[in-house]
Amino acid sequence: MYKSALFIFVAIIATSVVYSQEPVYIGPNIVPFPQVLNTGSSVLAVNPNTFSITTDSSSQILGINIKRYQKLFFPFGMVKSNAPALNLVVITKSDSEDLFLGIDESYSIVANNKQLTINANTVWGAVRALETFSQLIQWNPDQMSYTIPWVPMTISDFPRFPWRGFMIDTGRHFLPVQFILHIIDTIAYQKFNILHWHIVDAQSFPVVSSTYTNLTQGAFNPIAIYSHADIQEVIAYAKSYGIRVVPEFDIPGHSAAWGVGYPQLIASCPSYAYNINNMLLNIAQPYTYQFIGNLFAEMSSLFIDQYFHTGGDEVVLDCWGEDPTITAWMKKNNFNLVQAEEYFENQLTTILTNLNRTKMVWNDPYQNGVNMTKDTLVQVWDSASLTQEIVDAGYKAIVSFAYYLDKQVPNPEGKTHYEWQDTWQDFYGADPLDNITTSTANVLGGEACIWGEQVNQVSWDVRVYPRALAIGERLWSNEAVTDIQTALVRFTNNSCHIAQRGVNSGPLYPNYCYLPENIPSGQRPIMTLTPIEIASILKKK
Amino acid sequence: MYKSALFIFVAIIATSVVYSQEPVYIGPNIVPFPQVLNTGSSVLAVNPNTFSITTDSSSQILGINIKRYQKLFFPFGMVKSNAPALNLVVITKSDSEDLFLGIDESYSIVANNKQLTINANTVWGAVRALETFSQLIQWNPDQMSYTIPWVPMTISDFPRFPWRGFMIDTGRHFLPVQFILHIIDTIAYQKFNILHWHIVDAQSFPVVSSTYTNLTQGAFNPIAIYSHADIQEVIAYAKSYGIRVVPEFDIPGHSAAWGVGYPQLIASCPSYAYNINNMLLNIAQPYTYQFIGNLFAEMSSLFIDQYFHTGGDEVVLDCWGEDPTITAWMKKNNFNLVQAEEYFENQLTTILTNLNRTKMVWNDPYQNGVNMTKDTLVQVWDSASLTQEIVDAGYKAIVSFAYYLDKQVPNPEGKTHYEWQDTWQDFYGADPLDNITTSTANVLGGEACIWGEQVNQVSWDVRVYPRALAIGERLWSNEAVTDIQTALVRFTNNSCHIAQRGVNSGPLYPNYCYLPENIPSGQRPIMTLTPIEIASILKKK
Repeated sequence: MYKSALFIFVAIIATSVVYSQEPVYIGPNIVPFPQVLNTGSSVLAVNPNTFSITTDSSSQILGINIKRYQKLFFPFGMVKSNAPALNLVVITKSDSEDLFLGIDESYSIVANNKQLTINANTVWGAVRALETFSQLIQWNPDQMSYTIPWVPMTISDFPRFPWRGFMIDTGRHFLPVQFILHIIDTIAYQKFNILHWHIVDAQSFPVVSSTYTNLTQGAFNPIAIYSHADIQEVIAYAKSYGIRVVPEFDIPGHSAAWGVGYPQLIASCPSYAYNINNMLLNIAQPYTYQFIGNLFAEMSSLFIDQYFHTGGDEVVLDCWGEDPTITAWMKKNNFNLVQAEEYFENQLTTILTNLNRTKMVWNDPYQNGVNMTKDTLVQVWDSASLTQEIVDAGYKAIVSFAYYLDKQVPNPEGKTHYEWQDTWQDFYGADPLDNITTSTANVLGGEACIWGEQVNQVSWDVRVYPRALAIGERLWSNEAVTDIQTALVRFTNNSCHIAQRGVNSGPLYPNYCYLPENIPSGQRPIMTLTPIEIASILKKK
Repeated sequence: MYKSALFIFVAIIATSVVYSQEPVYIGPNIVPFPQVLNTGSSVLAVNPNTFSITTDSSSQILGINIKRYQKLFFPFGMVKSNAPALNLVVITKSDSEDLFLGIDESYSIVANNKQLTINANTVWGAVRALETFSQLIQWNPDQMSYTIPWVPMTISDFPRFPWRGFMIDTGRHFLPVQFILHIIDTIAYQKFNILHWHIVDAQSFPVVSSTYTNLTQGAFNPIAIYSHADIQEVIAYAKSYGIRVVPEFDIPGHSAAWGVGYPQLIASCPSYAYNINNMLLNIAQPYTYQFIGNLFAEMSSLFIDQYFHTGGDEVVLDCWGEDPTITAWMKKNNFNLVQAEEYFENQLTTILTNLNRTKMVWNDPYQNGVNMTKDTLVQVWDSASLTQEIVDAGYKAIVSFAYYLDKQVPNPEGKTHYEWQDTWQDFYGADPLDNITTSTANVLGGEACIWGEQVNQVSWDVRVYPRALAIGERLWSNEAVTDIQTALVRFTNNSCHIAQRGVNSGPLYPNYCYLPENIPSGQRPIMTLTPIEIASILKKK
């Protein structure tokens, strides 16, 4: 019944029949694959009861991660073992917990029967190393034991791109805070370093504002909202993994939900109201800019990252052309529709500059012909050719068009597979620099996007994983790491590994993944931060 | 960022802006939609603490379902309520628990403020009615209350097709027994009435045989196996819902795993071994038939249903042509390859006839030109035109080609959507009788299929749901019930309903589904059967 798919399987040796297809990858199932990996052929027995991680670093965040990974190293708990005690030493050159675009995330690992050592320049490099190290420890269900195979091993690793984002959309479906923390766990495993939080959209406004308290009238439900404390917990939890949180307040389009509590914010264009996504902010009144300025001031006190995304996508300009108060204003100012958009975008830029934030937008304003300041970061959801234009024009860009996890056919060329899960190969085959021939340094990286129309907390993991492994690796690993066959084996094994940690990530080919029924599937098994830890982490930008 | 998709949303009324798009379906979110539904506009308050279900029937299975649905009616438990006590009366004409193809599943429901009544000819009709009734009870998170809206209501319902199957594949990934019980819960909610258990395949043989104990050497793992007691639990649990279990032992192709413990069963064709699915049974030796005869005798003592599926798909006949012992046998008997296949299939028919079983096969033997006895039931995974041929030739058929839940593009014409989840529309739009113009009575129904190469227990629900709602409705409801807009609303609301019961089924458009974090997502919340109940249920075929 099943046609033309690729199957890898372990050799079955029988008396009269030999099925001789060998697995095509033998080695540690590290995802993303490190820049330099040297392996031996010995196996180190690991005793979870006596295993320790030590550091001289005074970093609180590194301390949190040592506690976290002490648990993550041993997902099946403290089984009996006669193996000798091992100590993993973590050395960092700096104890600084500053986190910003381009921070050094490099690290090295030495693992042999004499020493287990992580070396990094920063705390964040050490956190990346701990994740890699966790993937070296293998659970052997038949022996109920942990081992580190492939020793002696050395790893030297660093990311290819500084911007490795993951976009979630809580405007189309509310995701509970606890689930967002689970998402952060999950994307940290692939070394993503940005959570792009598309927090509101046309369908709902789930963010509590103390300045504009009616905004949450636009939430799906009075209990489906994010408090300031919720947002701070998300940011602190993300930062504990070295993940920056970039908020997106998508305007002037996709803003209908703002109008539930504050109707005067919304332009009047009844003939476009058949699609709620078409509704636009009324850009012809000072009230709107005052509102945005106050709201963004409040929000930037929570969202501590340098970057602040204001959307700008899919603005149905003709809606403005239908509102007589807006057309009157345009006429007075001698604006056409694009100039009206440009005026709005310039106001946003001023607001954000005054808040000491760098503006980020989708590619639409550029496409419309809006002049933007050169420090604007542009997220491209259109095409490689537009990316080329944008970086040639001197803007920094990140690419997303090939990384839409919700699409039936995510391949920009429309290529399809037999099984839907095999779309991981499309993500894997899409390099951010594909067809970019000049100004390549302006491409900062990329972002996986899971738009929220058809996904909530019960379906999120499976819609995203294991396919997102391919995007995580594409953004971190060397551009030469592209072989589908070896990736298939690593990804399926790594998918089992993260499933054992509570991510609902399934397989890519027939195999067996040890998943006792008492593992709380889909539950975040690890740890939360205490309120004191959250407050402390947030003190340090 | 999100283009061209369809959005339905509740009207948002604001002072200066009216977004006037109304939801396109107003009424109870019953899936599959009943044959006849009459609704009023009143709301009945339901007090879970005093609600009772009573019956005069002596059926043990009906008793189990009354206990089961007493819980399923109130997924959020015994909240406080001042509403008066209500009693649902269940009346069945017969207490028989016989279950077979074509059994009467019809029922009617009357619900008003004077009476709540279910009437059915059989126990199974009453079970279907209890599921429908459960979908009438609405949980209102804002009031923390249960109600039955749309009363006074009458429903008269019966299935369009007698064969409404769901195929699972435990050959490509082992699914734990507890998870198969969860699957049975899940498919019962859409009134599927057959679990087609594709239990072994080329990649693994997870079934314990007391006759041939080495067969489980072909399992993925020594603990990834089904004991006789496991199989009996699955069958009894399925029967408790009125679901028949049809086993598939797929031969002569897809049989490599048989050869791990019994290598002499497998034909020798090294040049085809690059794909494990190509390996075939050696059909030229009496040993093979003796083996199958003994094994099927053992298995038919467990699998009590009349139907027994022997696969027969994707037989790479040329493999036999490469084995000198088989070519010698063919020459002696003056067989070509198709005649060799026909000989094998005839032997299977004889074995099953002696075991009082009706044979079921995929369409491949027919396609190859094999003559089959006319009582063979043919499952079509090829096309409507082949279905037409098969039913015109006098065979009974069920269709599956348009119901492959694992495919990226399940639409036989290759039509695609923006989001993958929207493939539910392809399933919904595919009628088993599409392009069947003659011998339509020979089409018994259809089967949803989720092939197991890329799915295990952590990903199963989300790969299948909510899309399978569309197939369940297509096989049960009137052929005129095809409107995508109303189905979209019912399916998304019903998806939330089953998510509240523990099925990981996500949404199809932006909305809010009340899912407290303490609902054990993906866990089977309901009930198991006691060993005494299992034994008692299995006594009655």
